[in-house]
Amino acid sequence: MDHAGATPTSLTPAEKLAAVRALLAADGLDGMIVPRSDEHLGEYVPPAAERLAWLTGFTGSAGMAVVLADTAAVFSDGRYTLQLEQQTAGALWQRAHLVASPPAEWAAKHAPGATLGYDPWLLAEPVLAAFTKAGLHCVPLERNPIDAVWADRPSPPMAPARPHPLEDAGESSADKRERLAKTLRDVGQDAAVITDPASIAWLLNIRGSDVEFTPVALGFAMLQADGQVELFMAEEKLPAETHAWLGNQVQPSPREALPGALARLAGKTVRVDLAGSPAWFAARLREAGATLADAPDPCLLPKACKNAAEQRGARDCHQRDAVALCRFLHWLETAPGHDTELSAAARLVAFREAVEGFRGESFPAISSAGEHGAVIHYRVDEASNRPINPDEVYLIDSGAQFHDGTTDVTRTVWTGPSAPPESLRDRYTRVLKGHVTLSALTFPQGVAGAHLDAFARAALWQVGLDYDHGTGHGVGSYLSVHEGPARIHRDANPVPLAAGMILSNEPGFYLPGSYGIRIENLLLVVPAELDGVKPVAAKPFLRFETLTLAPYDRRLIAPELLSADERHWIDRYHARVLDAVGPSLADDGERLWLQAACRPL
Amino acid sequence: MDHAGATPTSLTPAEKLAAVRALLAADGLDGMIVPRSDEHLGEYVPPAAERLAWLTGFTGSAGMAVVLADTAAVFSDGRYTLQLEQQTAGALWQRAHLVASPPAEWAAKHAPGATLGYDPWLLAEPVLAAFTKAGLHCVPLERNPIDAVWADRPSPPMAPARPHPLEDAGESSADKRERLAKTLRDVGQDAAVITDPASIAWLLNIRGSDVEFTPVALGFAMLQADGQVELFMAEEKLPAETHAWLGNQVQPSPREALPGALARLAGKTVRVDLAGSPAWFAARLREAGATLADAPDPCLLPKACKNAAEQRGARDCHQRDAVALCRFLHWLETAPGHDTELSAAARLVAFREAVEGFRGESFPAISSAGEHGAVIHYRVDEASNRPINPDEVYLIDSGAQFHDGTTDVTRTVWTGPSAPPESLRDRYTRVLKGHVTLSALTFPQGVAGAHLDAFARAALWQVGLDYDHGTGHGVGSYLSVHEGPARIHRDANPVPLAAGMILSNEPGFYLPGSYGIRIENLLLVVPAELDGVKPVAAKPFLRFETLTLAPYDRRLIAPELLSADERHWIDRYHARVLDAVGPSLADDGERLWLQAACRPL
Repeated sequence: MDHAGATPTSLTPAEKLAAVRALLAADGLDGMIVPRSDEHLGEYVPPAAERLAWLTGFTGSAGMAVVLADTAAVFSDGRYTLQLEQQTAGALWQRAHLVASPPAEWAAKHAPGATLGYDPWLLAEPVLAAFTKAGLHCVPLERNPIDAVWADRPSPPMAPARPHPLEDAGESSADKRERLAKTLRDVGQDAAVITDPASIAWLLNIRGSDVEFTPVALGFAMLQADGQVELFMAEEKLPAETHAWLGNQVQPSPREALPGALARLAGKTVRVDLAGSPAWFAARLREAGATLADAPDPCLLPKACKNAAEQRGARDCHQRDAVALCRFLHWLETAPGHDTELSAAARLVAFREAVEGFRGESFPAISSAGEHGAVIHYRVDEASNRPINPDEVYLIDSGAQFHDGTTDVTRTVWTGPSAPPESLRDRYTRVLKGHVTLSALTFPQGVAGAHLDAFARAALWQVGLDYDHGTGHGVGSYLSVHEGPARIHRDANPVPLAAGMILSNEPGFYLPGSYGIRIENLLLVVPAELDGVKPVAAKPFLRFETLTLAPYDRRLIAPELLSADERHWIDRYHARVLDAVGPSLADDGERLWLQAACRPL
Repeated sequence: MDHAGATPTSLTPAEKLAAVRALLAADGLDGMIVPRSDEHLGEYVPPAAERLAWLTGFTGSAGMAVVLADTAAVFSDGRYTLQLEQQTAGALWQRAHLVASPPAEWAAKHAPGATLGYDPWLLAEPVLAAFTKAGLHCVPLERNPIDAVWADRPSPPMAPARPHPLEDAGESSADKRERLAKTLRDVGQDAAVITDPASIAWLLNIRGSDVEFTPVALGFAMLQADGQVELFMAEEKLPAETHAWLGNQVQPSPREALPGALARLAGKTVRVDLAGSPAWFAARLREAGATLADAPDPCLLPKACKNAAEQRGARDCHQRDAVALCRFLHWLETAPGHDTELSAAARLVAFREAVEGFRGESFPAISSAGEHGAVIHYRVDEASNRPINPDEVYLIDSGAQFHDGTTDVTRTVWTGPSAPPESLRDRYTRVLKGHVTLSALTFPQGVAGAHLDAFARAALWQVGLDYDHGTGHGVGSYLSVHEGPARIHRDANPVPLAAGMILSNEPGFYLPGSYGIRIENLLLVVPAELDGVKPVAAKPFLRFETLTLAPYDRRLIAPELLSADERHWIDRYHARVLDAVGPSLADDGERLWLQAACRPL
């Protein structure tokens, strides 16, 4: 089915593509690059920026399209292989893997030396470099042809930005700004361009609701080396309360003031994250005669390392969220069995709405029964919705935003009443072994996620199985559920894990056409206390504290596959879940269910 | 003690440094870079190229010195920290860590903007780039001032190159040359410069004895895209038998013909490994007007993936070597106890000399008792030699060259007669757990050593311990005991492990001043046969076949720290050692000892 068909447009997918091609031809272009991103290159984009979905029908969170005169392709990664085929029209679009068949290579093969247009607000320079390296010519577009054709394109969001109180933020914006300004001064940078609204939210201690799931207010900022910030955000998004909260060291300006502000940076050294910000910024700064210092967004690493208040908030909100989760899991096991993927997801939201401080989901829940579970980033809708049947696998990956933190959890259950097949228990237990092994690691400072990713896979590898996604991503503090710079992923990523980071631990296994298994907790990186052994070298060690509290489905666990250490870890974890959640369950049935779910294996 | 004092020179270390500085000053230079390498940038260099040792006294296999007008420093890595202090004069040389305090940064700090000379035959371009990036000016030297001062510098080696028979090589040189020439043609390269004598040995199926431990004949080669090779090697190193073996598609030329041969490449595309060959080559090729294609030595990957004959040779020679090893370990445990590090190392060589096909050691054995074991690359000599005492740790890391393969093995034993301390058993068992866990892994194609390194460390990490070296290196087939391109090391190294590669597995633990533990086997990468589980994805999986056969010291094993799987692995390995080696032991005492050493834990 074509999701874009749900938007109120009169054009068919073929007509959209034809109209865009006509405009490109009129501009003398051989084609164009259509990324999935908006002007902030973030994960969740407002409806006005859903250009890739509008044009191709594909709604996944990672993708790109390349339109050429006589062919076109849409690309995504292994999480979305099936979804890509389901959502796009094969007659119009070739479907390809972003990594195995990169867009630049595809374009170079189908139109060698072609001239492609791009919207400089929607792409970072390294994306363009791949096309240039492949022999293509990339030309910035004055006006995006999609926007020209998209007659009923929604307006940009105008939700207000609100203060994020100090008790949740843990550090005043003034202190953060001074801390970061010092890092600029230390290396001779006069200013830093910040294009990521999550960084702005962290730096200024504000939260918004311009996009779904991530509580940010869209805008841009310029941090000066003296600690002052110019905030480019529509005036109507800044109510008086927020103005007062920002204080007189933060100067709000309309978005339209941005080109002028960059032009005034002639002769200055300006830090800009070339890989993380739209190419428009680098181009304008070069035009202005500024010296570009290519470096990561200065907020990235400090934001990832949660302070004591944020860590406390994370523990608190996970404990509260766990009550909703456990009630949901109990309901799932005991409900009469007339439920669907949609109704189950709605039920979990209802349980969460009863939790103090709940602000909304942190991403669209993946509520998937049976074969839908093998669509790694499946998103249920009315068309795909199906009953949750007896004797099958049900996978739910969901998360919530609270005023004091962000959650993200996946549990996979067997619906019963029969016993699950042995092969399924084998696969579930191997996924669980990886999840437990990673959770239990201690490691020295300096180790990065790329060094740890394989621990979550080894039990699957042992029998020739694997999963085609990373093992973990960073998670924000009442911010993005997917946050950099660290992750647990095979790809080289030199950012070492550091105390205060929150990362997911989510190995899986997927049997296309049959089921999906994924088990996910959030982990907080904490200093390891190594009682009883005196470290010889004085280097600090770290370990993971598990934040998420919900039982694993014991019907799917094959204890004979667990080592003694793994079994012991699971028993201790279940005891902790029962301790933390049991007293908050008002209902006797729920409490008895949790006791049974958490008894030793 | 100053090792350089052993060379027959009348200059003191201070006089050498002063003389080199005088020549540099005369040339208007502020200093010079002194690498450890020779013109082939290999690990073992002939005495004529031991410039770093001559100048500084430091004899480790990884190092560099920087000489400035009023200060100087010598650098090495964590393996050599203690050795560096012992061998160099603190009054003349600062001692620093190659990675923690890189030479370029050190030089930039002590002489900002200085002009440093370098010998273009001894350094690759990326080494220079680090100095240039640090703001220093690098100038190629017409004549190396060390060579000018080093009056009694030895002559270059002139050992003959000999045929490496097809039954050991497994593929004719003609087939190898055609296979590689095709890879050049496929990417439009006209020729490839080969500066690594091990690559030449592999490509031409020859072996030599110009340097210790690695059976190569020093020379350079140019592989043409038509499969012909020009071999730049002194005529007296190529006896008639070798001439005939090389055939008429390999054209020997004297070393002096090299500049002219490069000059003739004007307009050609020439593949050269900028990171792996002396800067002289790239400079000359640019001068000649050739187009440089920077790519790895084309022999590197094919050489690393051993063919069936080489794999058979590896298994065979490891089984023969194991007889010497087991006899040595028996002798060590039962000898009357008047032995020293030197006499033990000599005893092991004597046992190996009795083995069919033995050609010599593959590297200088590390025979280290007690506190010497903590000097990771300790090399015993008359001055450092000490008795192997009762009730201490003895570590021996050694290897051999055979006509059909190369071995490298480390065992750590407790000399007794008392029981070892509990903490020592704990540490040994943790090192063994890492070694066993890595050995037992199965993993998909595409995985690199950087993803697996942590498996060998996790049991140490768990209690806050670690080791400051990589876990594994590639090993050649009757060639270099340290061979690229793959390794098992935390540093990002994108070369995936592939079937046929031989890698070491050598975790360790070192308590400075007390002892060193290291346990090393060689592993052959082989396709995994995954009976009983049908892989869902069709991707090939790999596993390790352990080549090395020698018991672990059961006195040092704390079985209660082992998982059931680890214990089972060790028992199976010991049974295999007994099966493979037992029948070859002529002596009843040895056989009974091996039976006891290999009984189940």
